[in-house]
Amino acid sequence: MCRWIAYTGPQIPMSLALIEAKHSLLVQSERSTMGAEPMNGDGFGVGWYSPHMDTPGVYRDVRPAWNDENFRDVTAHIRSRMFLAHIRATTGTAVQRSNCHPFRHGRWLFQHNGLVPEFHLLRRDLLFEIGQNFFDSIQGTTDSEVLFHLALTYGLETDPPAALSRTINTVESHMDRHGIEGELQFSAAVADGETIYAVRYANKGTPRTLFYATDLDVLKELDPHLEAIPEGSIVVVSEPLGPAMTWEEVPPGTLIRAGRGGVDVEAFRPD
Amino acid sequence: MCRWIAYTGPQIPMSLALIEAKHSLLVQSERSTMGAEPMNGDGFGVGWYSPHMDTPGVYRDVRPAWNDENFRDVTAHIRSRMFLAHIRATTGTAVQRSNCHPFRHGRWLFQHNGLVPEFHLLRRDLLFEIGQNFFDSIQGTTDSEVLFHLALTYGLETDPPAALSRTINTVESHMDRHGIEGELQFSAAVADGETIYAVRYANKGTPRTLFYATDLDVLKELDPHLEAIPEGSIVVVSEPLGPAMTWEEVPPGTLIRAGRGGVDVEAFRPD
Amino acid sequence: MCRWIAYTGPQIPMSLALIEAKHSLLVQSERSTMGAEPMNGDGFGVGWYSPHMDTPGVYRDVRPAWNDENFRDVTAHIRSRMFLAHIRATTGTAVQRSNCHPFRHGRWLFQHNGLVPEFHLLRRDLLFEIGQNFFDSIQGTTDSEVLFHLALTYGLETDPPAALSRTINTVESHMDRHGIEGELQFSAAVADGETIYAVRYANKGTPRTLFYATDLDVLKELDPHLEAIPEGSIVVVSEPLGPAMTWEEVPPGTLIRAGRGGVDVEAFRPD
Amino acid sequence: MCRWIAYTGPQIPMSLALIEAKHSLLVQSERSTMGAEPMNGDGFGVGWYSPHMDTPGVYRDVRPAWNDENFRDVTAHIRSRMFLAHIRATTGTAVQRSNCHPFRHGRWLFQHNGLVPEFHLLRRDLLFEIGQNFFDSIQGTTDSEVLFHLALTYGLETDPPAALSRTINTVESHMDRHGIEGELQFSAAVADGETIYAVRYANKGTPRTLFYATDLDVLKELDPHLEAIPEGSIVVVSEPLGPAMTWEEVPPGTLIRAGRGGVDVEAFRPD
Repeated sequence: MCRWIAYTGPQIPMSLALIEAKHSLLVQSERSTMGAEPMNGDGFGVGWYSPHMDTPGVYRDVRPAWNDENFRDVTAHIRSRMFLAHIRATTGTAVQRSNCHPFRHGRWLFQHNGLVPEFHLLRRDLLFEIGQNFFDSIQGTTDSEVLFHLALTYGLETDPPAALSRTINTVESHMDRHGIEGELQFSAAVADGETIYAVRYANKGTPRTLFYATDLDVLKELDPHLEAIPEGSIVVVSEPLGPAMTWEEVPPGTLIRAGRGGVDVEAFRPD
Repeated sequence: MCRWIAYTGPQIPMSLALIEAKHSLLVQSERSTMGAEPMNGDGFGVGWYSPHMDTPGVYRDVRPAWNDENFRDVTAHIRSRMFLAHIRATTGTAVQRSNCHPFRHGRWLFQHNGLVPEFHLLRRDLLFEIGQNFFDSIQGTTDSEVLFHLALTYGLETDPPAALSRTINTVESHMDRHGIEGELQFSAAVADGETIYAVRYANKGTPRTLFYATDLDVLKELDPHLEAIPEGSIVVVSEPLGPAMTWEEVPPGTLIRAGRGGVDVEAFRPD
Repeated sequence: MCRWIAYTGPQIPMSLALIEAKHSLLVQSERSTMGAEPMNGDGFGVGWYSPHMDTPGVYRDVRPAWNDENFRDVTAHIRSRMFLAHIRATTGTAVQRSNCHPFRHGRWLFQHNGLVPEFHLLRRDLLFEIGQNFFDSIQGTTDSEVLFHLALTYGLETDPPAALSRTINTVESHMDRHGIEGELQFSAAVADGETIYAVRYANKGTPRTLFYATDLDVLKELDPHLEAIPEGSIVVVSEPLGPAMTWEEVPPGTLIRAGRGGVDVEAFRPD
Repeated sequence: MCRWIAYTGPQIPMSLALIEAKHSLLVQSERSTMGAEPMNGDGFGVGWYSPHMDTPGVYRDVRPAWNDENFRDVTAHIRSRMFLAHIRATTGTAVQRSNCHPFRHGRWLFQHNGLVPEFHLLRRDLLFEIGQNFFDSIQGTTDSEVLFHLALTYGLETDPPAALSRTINTVESHMDRHGIEGELQFSAAVADGETIYAVRYANKGTPRTLFYATDLDVLKELDPHLEAIPEGSIVVVSEPLGPAMTWEEVPPGTLIRAGRGGVDVEAFRPD
């Protein structure tokens, strides 16, 4: 339903990956090739970390990314060493900024491609599972924001993989209880400014695609201002940014950690 | 924090009360004289009933009412026999369409001037008082929308005064339980296409102002297209639309019903 | 680049043609089949005539039509006997309300599918052909708005076909003078509340498609509230609203007049 | 009608002057004390220079500055050594991004507080004075944007003071020719990334206020991340940001240059 990208590595202008790459997120907003829908025009967002700020910045709007002039200028002028960005194709919930990804809580950013099946039947029960101390930061009405706040309730800030597992487990339990048999799709990224955790999971069927690349020389070629890219640059994406880089497909049921130490891959299952 | 108007009577262009009157809602959006703040620029909305439609129409946007050209055209071209309109001054929740009044559920419209004190502490508890069958129509994050859905849960569609009383009673109970001592302010209107129910209430202190007028000849003078206004035209407002009409102040702790039979006034208390 | 529709006939809820028809304008905004681009997501607009108003109403916004809830409500609640509506795919000019069609001047509405080639080279010269008395109503930066104001300057309000011919002639003269050889595409509609004038023209190549239908029983089937549709209902469109109606293709180099007397067809050439 | 600020000096988060200062631009948007109107809610904009970009970035929107969450994040995360920002109170022209200041052309930014009297009578003639090579970058309908493009036509990029003088002279000539006797108000700033040129001028009466300050230690106190502010930090404003700094009033008929060499003051008159 949506497309997203997450970057960590040396500071680069965010527009490099979001706008200038051959199959950038902006291009995907009009012509996604691997998404459930070719068009992702129901709002967008970008969240990024800056050296001088404790909390990440977030810029979200309801316009399609492709016709927001501000998006181009803001992402070209901000150089960041870690950022997440998302373009949305709503499955019915309102097109409003508070439903745009990434969502933020303190130092944490979260974005999601997928869905909780028959969420309207589960919404109330799932909200009930969210702790009082996280409840008030819910600003919108998406399943994605609820998933993020479940993970926060389950300890995302101390053990992200465990919190994400328990989140999925909780959703599946409520689905069982309601007799809901659809596909739970969860291709998501969460970041704290140091590490990006990305998950590719579905309770059945094939999970939404997820790829990563560590060979980013192509980005350097795109921008004459960029100096040599040091080791450790990583891009995680819903679909590849172009043919020039080598992309690794993340297998179903997998969590990856991307940070200064490179990419770690481990199994992910609800728990 | 906000200003609103509700009209019932013969079909008139909505702009007559919303824009053209001397102290119209549009004027109040820039220079309210009786509100908590002079400016109400954080979005607006209008809901109206049409003869050929089962559900009322709603037009809401996040711009200030005073610089939305569409608002002028839409309200000048739509003639309606019952409409509600609202201009918002947020106390902190997001400026998004889903937080703009009036809120709609089936044939019902609801709008509110006031606040639930320390709502962030009560939000979770109050949400869980809302029934599953009404839960999914919650689209925003305001206290007002929660009040509306509490009233729906408590039977608004069959006995509006009782449902509103129980709503207030529930909120006061939760305030007590949390030791919250602030002012609960509730100057609200709810309508079903036949009757407008308006309440002026505060648990302590003076409730937000509320007035009504039945002498609307002045509106006729404003618009040469209007034919004679039949008996039964009623406007209920947060603050008077101008000095030319005779305005009745609604006393604190009062509910009024306005419809074809005129205005009925009765006591209102939480129950 | 764009898609549009124009309707004249008995009062109908505008949403019937704009949203509910099988291949409605809303559907075309996401999946146009005959347009230069499948997607028309760069703003939209609707203009309509009401019995009690001297000037038509206009509602335009920069969102894609498909995710503006207001668009649905406003067009479902307004019944009109003549309206124009347009969805935009910009070729580069800003996505702002003042660049959305239809454009309005007094009782007149204008909308356009097509383009003036290399308009950036001609813009200044064409603007200076516009008379002082029409100049100040230019609010945006599109070629379409300039074409409308040229037509106004050349007497649109008294002889629409002649004014449109002279407009095209003027543009072609300036193209010649600048040595511009591209295609001038002009599939446009202009209305005064009594008659819709629609033109299909290109200086070379095939003009953008244009169709009309007078057999609108299908619309009646769509809406149980509609009474028998009297003779004289006409829809003019960029592409057909569905397979159930019989659509006449307007030949290249043609102007049609649609109004109470039915459809008149005549040759159109720059003059 | 409007308020603006221009900063040059060491890199600071833009939000320091735009949001955090006691009487910041954000505060002025709701409660300007020296402006023609207390409220400036008809859009806003900020333009800034970044070391790695040849052209300045621009972020503009039609919302009031006070309810745009993006504005807070973008200006807190971008550190800049030169930026201009503006809040708008329209005198009637459309509230659209292309009418928001600052305007940009190549490396140049321009913003304006004031007005050309009876601009609707002069607009066509003044547009005529703008050269073809600058004409196509006009995107909106304000008098301010026309003034900027006149200055570009008259050599702003090589001799800013002379170009601004000739611009005002041209406007006054056209006013004379049309017999327009109103006040021409021109408190404006233009920048090229190295120097800010600010003018305070009116053809009669008192020009809109203009101040500057070079003692910015107070900004340092506001932000613990700021290191020692080197010599040469300068803020030019429509009205002071607070009482803690010493503000110099720019006299009527004056142009100041602010840059690395400090502030130069010289007479300004139309020429």
